[in-house]
Amino acid sequence: MFDLDSLIQTALKEDIGWGDITTEACVPPDLQAVGAFIAKEPMVICGLFTLQRVFAAMDERVKVMLHCQDGSMLLAGTMVAEVSGPARAILTAERTSLNILQRLSGIATRTREAVTQVEGTQARVCDTRKTTPGLRELEKYAVRIGGGSNHRMGLSDGVLIKDNHIAAAGSIAKAVDAARKRIPHSIKIEVETATIDDVRQALSSGADIIMFDNMDIPMMTEAVRLVNGRALTEASGNMGDKPLREVAMTGVDLISIGALTHTVHAADINLKLGSTPKAL
Amino acid sequence: MFDLDSLIQTALKEDIGWGDITTEACVPPDLQAVGAFIAKEPMVICGLFTLQRVFAAMDERVKVMLHCQDGSMLLAGTMVAEVSGPARAILTAERTSLNILQRLSGIATRTREAVTQVEGTQARVCDTRKTTPGLRELEKYAVRIGGGSNHRMGLSDGVLIKDNHIAAAGSIAKAVDAARKRIPHSIKIEVETATIDDVRQALSSGADIIMFDNMDIPMMTEAVRLVNGRALTEASGNMGDKPLREVAMTGVDLISIGALTHTVHAADINLKLGSTPKAL
Amino acid sequence: MFDLDSLIQTALKEDIGWGDITTEACVPPDLQAVGAFIAKEPMVICGLFTLQRVFAAMDERVKVMLHCQDGSMLLAGTMVAEVSGPARAILTAERTSLNILQRLSGIATRTREAVTQVEGTQARVCDTRKTTPGLRELEKYAVRIGGGSNHRMGLSDGVLIKDNHIAAAGSIAKAVDAARKRIPHSIKIEVETATIDDVRQALSSGADIIMFDNMDIPMMTEAVRLVNGRALTEASGNMGDKPLREVAMTGVDLISIGALTHTVHAADINLKLGSTPKAL
Amino acid sequence: MFDLDSLIQTALKEDIGWGDITTEACVPPDLQAVGAFIAKEPMVICGLFTLQRVFAAMDERVKVMLHCQDGSMLLAGTMVAEVSGPARAILTAERTSLNILQRLSGIATRTREAVTQVEGTQARVCDTRKTTPGLRELEKYAVRIGGGSNHRMGLSDGVLIKDNHIAAAGSIAKAVDAARKRIPHSIKIEVETATIDDVRQALSSGADIIMFDNMDIPMMTEAVRLVNGRALTEASGNMGDKPLREVAMTGVDLISIGALTHTVHAADINLKLGSTPKAL
Amino acid sequence: MFDLDSLIQTALKEDIGWGDITTEACVPPDLQAVGAFIAKEPMVICGLFTLQRVFAAMDERVKVMLHCQDGSMLLAGTMVAEVSGPARAILTAERTSLNILQRLSGIATRTREAVTQVEGTQARVCDTRKTTPGLRELEKYAVRIGGGSNHRMGLSDGVLIKDNHIAAAGSIAKAVDAARKRIPHSIKIEVETATIDDVRQALSSGADIIMFDNMDIPMMTEAVRLVNGRALTEASGNMGDKPLREVAMTGVDLISIGALTHTVHAADINLKLGSTPKAL
Amino acid sequence: MFDLDSLIQTALKEDIGWGDITTEACVPPDLQAVGAFIAKEPMVICGLFTLQRVFAAMDERVKVMLHCQDGSMLLAGTMVAEVSGPARAILTAERTSLNILQRLSGIATRTREAVTQVEGTQARVCDTRKTTPGLRELEKYAVRIGGGSNHRMGLSDGVLIKDNHIAAAGSIAKAVDAARKRIPHSIKIEVETATIDDVRQALSSGADIIMFDNMDIPMMTEAVRLVNGRALTEASGNMGDKPLREVAMTGVDLISIGALTHTVHAADINLKLGSTPKAL
Repeated sequence: MFDLDSLIQTALKEDIGWGDITTEACVPPDLQAVGAFIAKEPMVICGLFTLQRVFAAMDERVKVMLHCQDGSMLLAGTMVAEVSGPARAILTAERTSLNILQRLSGIATRTREAVTQVEGTQARVCDTRKTTPGLRELEKYAVRIGGGSNHRMGLSDGVLIKDNHIAAAGSIAKAVDAARKRIPHSIKIEVETATIDDVRQALSSGADIIMFDNMDIPMMTEAVRLVNGRALTEASGNMGDKPLREVAMTGVDLISIGALTHTVHAADINLKLGSTPKAL
Repeated sequence: MFDLDSLIQTALKEDIGWGDITTEACVPPDLQAVGAFIAKEPMVICGLFTLQRVFAAMDERVKVMLHCQDGSMLLAGTMVAEVSGPARAILTAERTSLNILQRLSGIATRTREAVTQVEGTQARVCDTRKTTPGLRELEKYAVRIGGGSNHRMGLSDGVLIKDNHIAAAGSIAKAVDAARKRIPHSIKIEVETATIDDVRQALSSGADIIMFDNMDIPMMTEAVRLVNGRALTEASGNMGDKPLREVAMTGVDLISIGALTHTVHAADINLKLGSTPKAL
Repeated sequence: MFDLDSLIQTALKEDIGWGDITTEACVPPDLQAVGAFIAKEPMVICGLFTLQRVFAAMDERVKVMLHCQDGSMLLAGTMVAEVSGPARAILTAERTSLNILQRLSGIATRTREAVTQVEGTQARVCDTRKTTPGLRELEKYAVRIGGGSNHRMGLSDGVLIKDNHIAAAGSIAKAVDAARKRIPHSIKIEVETATIDDVRQALSSGADIIMFDNMDIPMMTEAVRLVNGRALTEASGNMGDKPLREVAMTGVDLISIGALTHTVHAADINLKLGSTPKAL
Repeated sequence: MFDLDSLIQTALKEDIGWGDITTEACVPPDLQAVGAFIAKEPMVICGLFTLQRVFAAMDERVKVMLHCQDGSMLLAGTMVAEVSGPARAILTAERTSLNILQRLSGIATRTREAVTQVEGTQARVCDTRKTTPGLRELEKYAVRIGGGSNHRMGLSDGVLIKDNHIAAAGSIAKAVDAARKRIPHSIKIEVETATIDDVRQALSSGADIIMFDNMDIPMMTEAVRLVNGRALTEASGNMGDKPLREVAMTGVDLISIGALTHTVHAADINLKLGSTPKAL
Repeated sequence: MFDLDSLIQTALKEDIGWGDITTEACVPPDLQAVGAFIAKEPMVICGLFTLQRVFAAMDERVKVMLHCQDGSMLLAGTMVAEVSGPARAILTAERTSLNILQRLSGIATRTREAVTQVEGTQARVCDTRKTTPGLRELEKYAVRIGGGSNHRMGLSDGVLIKDNHIAAAGSIAKAVDAARKRIPHSIKIEVETATIDDVRQALSSGADIIMFDNMDIPMMTEAVRLVNGRALTEASGNMGDKPLREVAMTGVDLISIGALTHTVHAADINLKLGSTPKAL
Repeated sequence: MFDLDSLIQTALKEDIGWGDITTEACVPPDLQAVGAFIAKEPMVICGLFTLQRVFAAMDERVKVMLHCQDGSMLLAGTMVAEVSGPARAILTAERTSLNILQRLSGIATRTREAVTQVEGTQARVCDTRKTTPGLRELEKYAVRIGGGSNHRMGLSDGVLIKDNHIAAAGSIAKAVDAARKRIPHSIKIEVETATIDDVRQALSSGADIIMFDNMDIPMMTEAVRLVNGRALTEASGNMGDKPLREVAMTGVDLISIGALTHTVHAADINLKLGSTPKAL
């Protein structure tokens, strides 16, 4: 998350614009305040370190003390963190800090639910590239915090050969060969398949990972048996609406779910402020 | 949306990284392709102009032809737009274009549902500042396309005096006075209230807009009666979970709903590609 | 002034280029210096906080101690601030710090003169969008410090319907209606008028503010009487060359003056340096 | 002016913010307009090429046709340029285009006045580093267009040894020697002097240029005689308030005037618009 | 190479600064010129597409016609490309275009030499992360054009466990396990080894790739035999100075050479210009 | 080197991408480490201050202690600097810090060799504009550290009139006159010559510096005699391959060598790490 600060700058500028005119008008510059971030519903909390970065970007004198760790399962009413410092800075950055924290916690919570459904099986839940523009790194972090694992981060750190690539290359074997020549040896090759015959071709082409796209349970079961450990297997296709345990029982290694990041319920968190007049 | 291109650059770089190695390996540089964006479920479509900007940022030779307009209510299966040009560029930018279009259409669709609930009343549905970092302008546009109206865009184009501001300023009247002195005369002053007495104070301070925060229906009804057209009135507080028609019947002018933008279901849209080999 | 630092970076880079070769050649890196910013003519000082930000951007070890506050009316010869730290950094950033401070103080001083002319009337002096590219926020701050008030900051935080908008919309009433539908409810609508009939139409359309553009004193007097408090009124049009008190006596609420920011005399301030050799 | 576009982006974003809500509400997207830039007072016009860049940054379909050239001396009422294209883009970019053009024309006009005063002498009028943050390159261009010449553009393309540098280095000779060792051989060395003795030292140190800082006319005359063509000579120090012809008659090669750029009267130019409804 | 344009902007700004004053002074704006890029020594040419991007960034009217393709082996005297358009733009961008082209061709040529040495063996030559700041993507492209293959592009698209990681994790097995849990399933795990025992541990930990760091030929031969195809093998450590064929004969799959990019001889290419006066 | 930090950000982002996944997986966040930068061959060390900036950009808690100064001539095995702090930050930034330090030390070392060859003559060794895109300022600094001097930094801080400029202007005299009118008076004018007649024209045109391009030794000797101190003289043209002492003996003032920066051997430096477990 090396570049988080530029996202935070973007978010703060977008919100603040010419200035928080309400706060500038009503709140004296030397007023100090303390506040508590409270979880208002059960959740897996995620993104706590961003609180410190958001408030520091606003005013370095604001201090944030964390009361739990990313990945903690919280009950409604739990105090997540405390913030203290100049009242103006806290009020102005409040919404930006919450917008990030609530979204990440929503993703982590949703991921945990999916992970729980497949608990005890060999299957791992993973994400996709269906993320919000500009937030991918944070959202994929939230998936890990929720207990999921990451699919490739983008187009350059994994090969995923889909139907259009196969059509353009001529065959699965040709596509895999072409990729093998082009890519760093540190990267694996995955092939998307829709039929048992596709799976057979992908296997013989030496694919490292085979994705089963929108296969029904019986076909997926057969496909897993066919692969028989010679490649990683991944179930894909509207997995957000499927019975995950049933999918996992086919023996696939991975279940990738776009909804983890594209359909997010912001976890309900708020900031309760108290203020103490104090001369500078 | 003057600065949309920098969001698009961010989104493309984030996804492409070092390059779309699969496409570079499998798809010849001179292959041309055509594709169709298809709505897979009923929706209010929103963000069509971004398709043209995303693909142009990737390769100026890609052409996009729109088949409908932002705000159209679509049935499942409708063709939304066609894209044609170099197959590499289309494949590489596909996910980024969909990530934006699906999110905006999801917001417009959700907003339309809320607007429909209060149809025939005087109440307007509006958004909040609970938006995704970096996407506020687009998300507030989607709310307008869905038939909603916008609350202030950020902290600098509207005054909203909340409990902490009142505490810091000393009273509602003092806070309103302080704001009036600080702000451009083009901007209105809104005061958040929780009790009938708050409403009374806000009115006598000359507030232009009065927000009723988390009031129950009877109190809100009384508050509207008290204001009696001397200020705009706004209902607020978890409105995403409230019976909107009942709220509207109290006579409030505005109902602001954070969930319009913080809890979004990405509308299901995909891109079906066909390709035609063609020498350059 | 959330984004001041990027303006300062731009200004420093523009001046420094490859490096301050004179200072690097002549001044040892460990030499310490102290300096005093002196007002060389009477002025309203403005922009003192930028001194700290400019020198900190150059070298965090430079310390600035302010001897007065923004808005203070200074006699010639007053010491404004002291600076101390590495001589190289002070010499290199000197011109940039003065270029900003002198300009802002010039604007504040010019504004104070205008405000003084209308003292005792109801009229407020305000600025326009005729500002220097990249400096609007700072220049509008200087107007406030000089005792003026701000007009809208830009095109998005206030509606100002001019003749071309009216022509395009069809009538004043249609233009006002169209704007009301488009904008956040936190924003007011202003209409520019040139005749008494225009004023009448603006009033009946429900405009919040009515601008009298280049009206002579008798017409303006009649216009104010016609409006009679039902909207804010603003006098505009080469006000930099007009007798402001006479304009104010018509009863207008606001007088907007482009010359406050587009025709600026840099206030005369300089930095007197002394240096003390000191081993690191 | 390689990087002009980023200044234009900054200026447009600063003005447009979330969008020109007045124009978006009142002006149909397909309305076309034509407009004429008119000089409202006599002036040396400067910055015409920026018109094309500003409107192109807004919308590539806007066309600008220039009716005169930078440096032309215009009478009041002259049409400077015509603009045509989408009415929305023209209205939204109008103020930004004028803010730049008026400022540059003001500088060119002011410079021309100074140049006229010294006409027929050997003296050249030049600028200083007292420019507006972010606009130096444009402002120094305007000085050239007005007939002046440029002093160094910044701290890295000229050496100017002042009293503090001399104090730090130990003597004028030591300072000049140190600079000679550090700098590219393409750059000259200038020394600031306040007394005849300083001039003597600067000469014997081999300075390429000698600045006479705040000398009175008799001393300057003596100094020029002393130098006798062995170095360039420059008169400096509040030259904006001095009788330039008298200064020039001392025989100095250069007169540098900070007021050319720090105290600018924006030349009065406006844009008269007509519009023609047109279906797309 | 999605982001090449920002590197080009940086390079042009760095060189042009305030403007190419020589060319502006001496060359009329309407003069047209043609030029030829000539290889002055034998080389593998690389980076031709950057010519078009550099000149387009300078002036869109400059046209570049390529006479060969990246990867072509050229004799001294070969014409590489022709450029035509405004003489000013060609002269100003000449050096920047050559600085990029010469460096990339130097890398491709150096790589080709290494590849030739191992021809006929199973070994592939690959690069490292020892690249020039800001140019990695281009330099790794040049390695591919020279016939080499890429190692991981950076720290996020490949795992490479070195001695310090092993020490921190506790053992090779623990480090590999920890990595497996953290990374996308599209990425392989490589372990650096210095002894036969290290190799044994790496193998049993399930590493996908095993690097032999600074092993001598006999040990490397033994290591390859031990691995026996169960992982990819890579020879590393000052390979720029080693007899590559001898290394390849050990049977390793990859030989990584830092010198390919950290010690580069710029290929000798120049631009011969002719100009034709032409009225605009 | 005011803008070094943005180069460092670019370099770190380019290497780190989504994160140093190996280190994140294997190294606990609270592990502390110490390391030593060791010169592995004799060299002139250069760029030590960049170590502090690179590690600070990564993590402000990393401390760097320098054991020598830029310009020191080091034996193989010398410890250059020590680094201590969080192990993760040190490991992640290691390669970026070395890539910069090794390149600059390579340039300084190469320059020192050239300077040594002409020791005792009047000739100074200088660089050219043949630098790496984005690194010019650093590379020219390394030349100074190696004992060389800088030619102009770019196109705007020195005039260099070449054959194409002369052709376009009409003659050497016309080109020099045109330049004199355009440029700040702080800048000198250099003319490239190929024949004795060219030199004669350059002299009579008043050029400040005369470059002898690819002249052989006898012609250069004659040219120097002809100039006879009335201008600076510079030998140029593949000087990286010429016998420098012989060139110097012709009496030229400057010898400019492109190879100093375009053909660089990275000096061999590495970082030896030790780590100490430590609870935070």
